[in-house]
Amino acid sequence: MTTVGILGGGQLARMMALSGAPLGLRFLVMDTVADACAGQFAPLLVGDYRDEAALAEFAGKVDVATFDFENVPAESAEWLSARVPVFPNPRALAVAQDRLAEKTLFRELDIPVPAFAAVASRQELDQALATVGVPCILKTRRLGYDGKGQFRIRSLADADAAWQALGAQAGTVGLIVEAFVPFERELSVVAVRGRDGEFRTWPLTENWHVDGVLSASLAPARVDPALADTATGYARRLAERLDYVGVFALELFCRDGALLANELAPRVHNSGHWTIEGAETSQFQNHLRAVLGLPLGATDVRGRACMLNWIGAMPEAGPVLAEPGGHWHDYGKEPREGRKVGHATLRADAPSVLADALERVGQALGRQSQVAPPVAALRGG
Amino acid sequence: MTTVGILGGGQLARMMALSGAPLGLRFLVMDTVADACAGQFAPLLVGDYRDEAALAEFAGKVDVATFDFENVPAESAEWLSARVPVFPNPRALAVAQDRLAEKTLFRELDIPVPAFAAVASRQELDQALATVGVPCILKTRRLGYDGKGQFRIRSLADADAAWQALGAQAGTVGLIVEAFVPFERELSVVAVRGRDGEFRTWPLTENWHVDGVLSASLAPARVDPALADTATGYARRLAERLDYVGVFALELFCRDGALLANELAPRVHNSGHWTIEGAETSQFQNHLRAVLGLPLGATDVRGRACMLNWIGAMPEAGPVLAEPGGHWHDYGKEPREGRKVGHATLRADAPSVLADALERVGQALGRQSQVAPPVAALRGG
Repeated sequence: MTTVGILGGGQLARMMALSGAPLGLRFLVMDTVADACAGQFAPLLVGDYRDEAALAEFAGKVDVATFDFENVPAESAEWLSARVPVFPNPRALAVAQDRLAEKTLFRELDIPVPAFAAVASRQELDQALATVGVPCILKTRRLGYDGKGQFRIRSLADADAAWQALGAQAGTVGLIVEAFVPFERELSVVAVRGRDGEFRTWPLTENWHVDGVLSASLAPARVDPALADTATGYARRLAERLDYVGVFALELFCRDGALLANELAPRVHNSGHWTIEGAETSQFQNHLRAVLGLPLGATDVRGRACMLNWIGAMPEAGPVLAEPGGHWHDYGKEPREGRKVGHATLRADAPSVLADALERVGQALGRQSQVAPPVAALRGG
Repeated sequence: MTTVGILGGGQLARMMALSGAPLGLRFLVMDTVADACAGQFAPLLVGDYRDEAALAEFAGKVDVATFDFENVPAESAEWLSARVPVFPNPRALAVAQDRLAEKTLFRELDIPVPAFAAVASRQELDQALATVGVPCILKTRRLGYDGKGQFRIRSLADADAAWQALGAQAGTVGLIVEAFVPFERELSVVAVRGRDGEFRTWPLTENWHVDGVLSASLAPARVDPALADTATGYARRLAERLDYVGVFALELFCRDGALLANELAPRVHNSGHWTIEGAETSQFQNHLRAVLGLPLGATDVRGRACMLNWIGAMPEAGPVLAEPGGHWHDYGKEPREGRKVGHATLRADAPSVLADALERVGQALGRQSQVAPPVAALRGG
């Protein structure tokens, strides 16, 4: 039996284990907390990612290692990779962990990015604002996610407040200024690359965020084929340059019909959760197939699918389960403000049928504003 | 959190737990052996089903109980049902455990059955052969499955040999003689009934057995709609009479365009495994939805699906995983002769595409004879 080790025991590890069980795999999940939700369906090792004894125990019990959590220290991944195969490779992880390295790579690969500049001091912040222009966003280079570690600068007058909020981190995780992109749409490419270099993508997904956190995803996104080809071309270039193995997501802004790369997430991704029911093979199973060197599964889509994230607490399941294409995902977590605790996927063959279902669910759960953007996209778009 | 208890920890319990995790459920599996394969993904309680202390521990830890194994003693199910809700109800289980009670019920409900007669002695065997005719099959009333506990009687001259093989069980599990039906096709209805009486079926499945064990299933079966309506009507009648809650399978013979009921399996069923990838909602998730009183999911099918059982040992996964609609299910069991250790499901929108895929897989794995019947059905039909 092959045991797959997963660093990080959240919902991504949980869904990975559930999806990988049919491949005859066993799992060992490592997390810093004992109630990590993947531990409900896989053995859990509790330890700090920087604790060599814990990492050694983990390495001794697994045949291959991967991640549910992109902020595992790159040195820990390096240490581990000297002992067991680790996919994606630690270098890819390191690049994706650092907004500056990531954006520099985008630029090297001729992937358009918003203007950006590194910031190491208060003075460099002023220089960056002059180069990049306002509005822009001051961000930590590392350890930011779901809108955390960000300060929006609307005019030069905001510079002091921004520095006060994040300046202390210039010497630790580092800072970067990125131009604010008044995008019309947010898209993501969820892609997978095998050990043998085989590369596949699911159809583009359109995403809507609220307060920096993903709220809804709709797939396939309504885009013209040339735009989709461009986006998947960017993803392929990145995957090949990084010798990436496994699933990753490339988040893109779409403005005036052109694409700008926002972020590379070196793992299965929230905007790919719809693939569980909406595609022939899910992102979770294909990630494992890639990591294990197995043939990749088809990424063909079945009709249209819309994913709704549940943040903070689970709503009532009934209205979603009552829909013909309604699927429920409760991560088994305790409720907590801002926490991703579950999601629903609604699937239908026809766009209007999916829009109707979303409207009924939005109405029944009092979440009309959450369903409104995908409904508008399905109806009008 | 709701904990679902499952009596029996084989592949059905395993797939049930994997399928129910997204509903936010926890599971406790009880089995007589410590290496029951469901225990790889759910907590396992090892104990005998007749051991009241073990049953009491089980009952104390679960909110509702169900079965992966139909031969749990009916008294154990009764005992349990005085303590926690048990679905399906123990009476339905008891009927399905006894071929005589089951066939008597079929007859009562005007569901055609092959001729049958109870046999309590050598003399009654002769009487039964006279009534039922030859060829026929002497079977144990209880505890038979996958062709075990059966003796085929081709002519009256076989009566002594049959009695020698099974006569000793006349006083324990009981015996029954059933007419041998030279059927053209074997079909099954996989159905689900909710706590509120809502009833749904997946499309009819066509099945092929080898040595009494399911070898391949194809869905939807090629049948005319009137025949499908008749079959689902039988299933509904049974479910309503038994006040059945959960998934069950009704196995049918088809001869000269007419149906004869063979067997009722009071649980998720091997001939419904294709629903994991081939239907909007799988039999496993709908069983849990039913047991928990949740709305049932849609049973619509996606194209065509063919399930191939792996008996004894797992073949190489590569040829199945390399097919666009190829899905792998390794139950994590040790190889053993005659043991169901896994299955594959191949799915495609078009029959000819599925037939081609089956032929490639049959060729690559040296299992041409296993794939031949579904391929012929898909091609010629």
